[in-house]
Amino acid sequence: VTTPPFGPGREFDRIRAFLRDLSPMPAGVLLGPGDDAAVLEPDLVISTDLAIEGVHFDLDWITPHEAGRRAAAAALSDLAAMGAAPQGLLASLALPPGSAEAGEALMSGIRARIEAFGGALLGGDLTRSPGPIFLDIVAVGRASTPLLRSGGRPGDELWVTGHLGGAAAAVRNWQAGSPPPDALRRAYADPEPRILPALWLVGRECARAAIDLSDGLAGDAAHLAAASGLRVELDAASIPFHPGLAGVEGALELALHGGDDYELLFACRPGALSPEGVEEFRRTFDLEVTRVGLLTTGKGVVLSPADGGPARPVVRGGYDHFHDER
Amino acid sequence: VTTPPFGPGREFDRIRAFLRDLSPMPAGVLLGPGDDAAVLEPDLVISTDLAIEGVHFDLDWITPHEAGRRAAAAALSDLAAMGAAPQGLLASLALPPGSAEAGEALMSGIRARIEAFGGALLGGDLTRSPGPIFLDIVAVGRASTPLLRSGGRPGDELWVTGHLGGAAAAVRNWQAGSPPPDALRRAYADPEPRILPALWLVGRECARAAIDLSDGLAGDAAHLAAASGLRVELDAASIPFHPGLAGVEGALELALHGGDDYELLFACRPGALSPEGVEEFRRTFDLEVTRVGLLTTGKGVVLSPADGGPARPVVRGGYDHFHDER
Repeated sequence: VTTPPFGPGREFDRIRAFLRDLSPMPAGVLLGPGDDAAVLEPDLVISTDLAIEGVHFDLDWITPHEAGRRAAAAALSDLAAMGAAPQGLLASLALPPGSAEAGEALMSGIRARIEAFGGALLGGDLTRSPGPIFLDIVAVGRASTPLLRSGGRPGDELWVTGHLGGAAAAVRNWQAGSPPPDALRRAYADPEPRILPALWLVGRECARAAIDLSDGLAGDAAHLAAASGLRVELDAASIPFHPGLAGVEGALELALHGGDDYELLFACRPGALSPEGVEEFRRTFDLEVTRVGLLTTGKGVVLSPADGGPARPVVRGGYDHFHDER
Repeated sequence: VTTPPFGPGREFDRIRAFLRDLSPMPAGVLLGPGDDAAVLEPDLVISTDLAIEGVHFDLDWITPHEAGRRAAAAALSDLAAMGAAPQGLLASLALPPGSAEAGEALMSGIRARIEAFGGALLGGDLTRSPGPIFLDIVAVGRASTPLLRSGGRPGDELWVTGHLGGAAAAVRNWQAGSPPPDALRRAYADPEPRILPALWLVGRECARAAIDLSDGLAGDAAHLAAASGLRVELDAASIPFHPGLAGVEGALELALHGGDDYELLFACRPGALSPEGVEEFRRTFDLEVTRVGLLTTGKGVVLSPADGGPARPVVRGGYDHFHDER
């Protein structure tokens, strides 16, 4: 959910440790912290996502309307990762003086995103900010059989939707002072939460564990590996790079550690996603789906390089924050 | 939910208007924006509450642990106003550099508050802040018959729990540069969300509309009046001032417009709360419950002064923010 260059580093490790040590969940709570969202009986899925000016978005890069759309997409992406259908969003917004117009544009972007899925803005909070624009979006959906990060089994195939690295490439452009090409800009400014593809995959029993790619493939694969108690083996040659990365230096690094793609990484029973299934998925959603590796016994994430050398551990990149403790 | 001196004024009126004009709610949503919380089938109650350093709390006044407790109490107070039993909280926290210890104390305060009600921390988000400490707390509860602001009927009695004005008096002390006496400090630093009293009132059918007092009696009464399509008539002589306000100048003003009390204002059918019921309530909760007025046809809020003069409109005070549009 975050733009990698601004990571808080190890400073928050104690808070994460503190949150990991949680008391048992009360009756009525099916799933507490540690996944993309919490799940409450009978089928309610709830997630919360911060979007802070100067951390998660920059109004020199995108418009306030886009920032709202993007923050809502990031929140909805958590629902996609749970295989949940959206019901609505709640938006808490703090605005510095003089930014009421930006606030209205943000809210219109948020509304557009949720209403496109038949959901609604269910509420929120609004106040002034003595700092930058602060936004927290609560996503609420329903899933009768939620997809957990912990559902992977040894031998499962790992797949990703769409293409990776485009958003991070756009950020790199902006940070170097040059506006990104349109295709990369779009990848960053207007990611598409993979709600319908996720529902399709759940409906056909083609996914039994999933996470959305907010921190980069390597970091999010590590979350899925840890939650499933397994090792992720990635194959660099199969990673579907964003077309805008053709000829761009460091494409692998951007895909592995760049973040902000909001594609899905999911595990499925070997063969569950047949070639015909892949074809139908692509036709239905006009979206790639690519096998990038598998789950094996062990821990961590290893990568087989495209040049055929031995698999080696991937140093965890991406943005290490409380998200994985949810 | 907010400290009144920091109101955003009229600047956000357009955003509020924009949010008021919402599309119809999707199936599965029983109640959208406009009350203390949203309600989703079958009985889920969800609210979100901002708590921002320098707006809602000041670490020169209270400790980080207290700030966490207080923010959680404010969020839980929304559940109380809906007659809901808490299930859990999600906490989104943004911390400036060097404040990891304060963050841990905040989170421990939040956990203490929710765990005391048998609920749990269900998740959240954690990132760095380029400004002050920014906290958004999502409260999730259950209510089979939620108490709405709109449930009032003409002739209903209006009651409040506890005592009013203490928290605002403490704020006035701090702002004048002198620490408040202990009792006032406690009223501000550690408000008690009226969860169990609310459940008691719902269970005995002694409340059919309610709101929590975050903006001050006048402002929150105005919300209840507007939602019920009625007029609130308050009797100044009956307002239960905080004991720490004895001899304090401007006590009425503090109770009406001060905010931060987190007591309940509720409407009940005439006679539904009998003298015996009042006695039992006081004994059970060691808490006052006081009749302060009634609902009549009309609109707005009028106050009969303690000196017996004619009732006059109360200019809406308190902190006018998006809270009422939720």
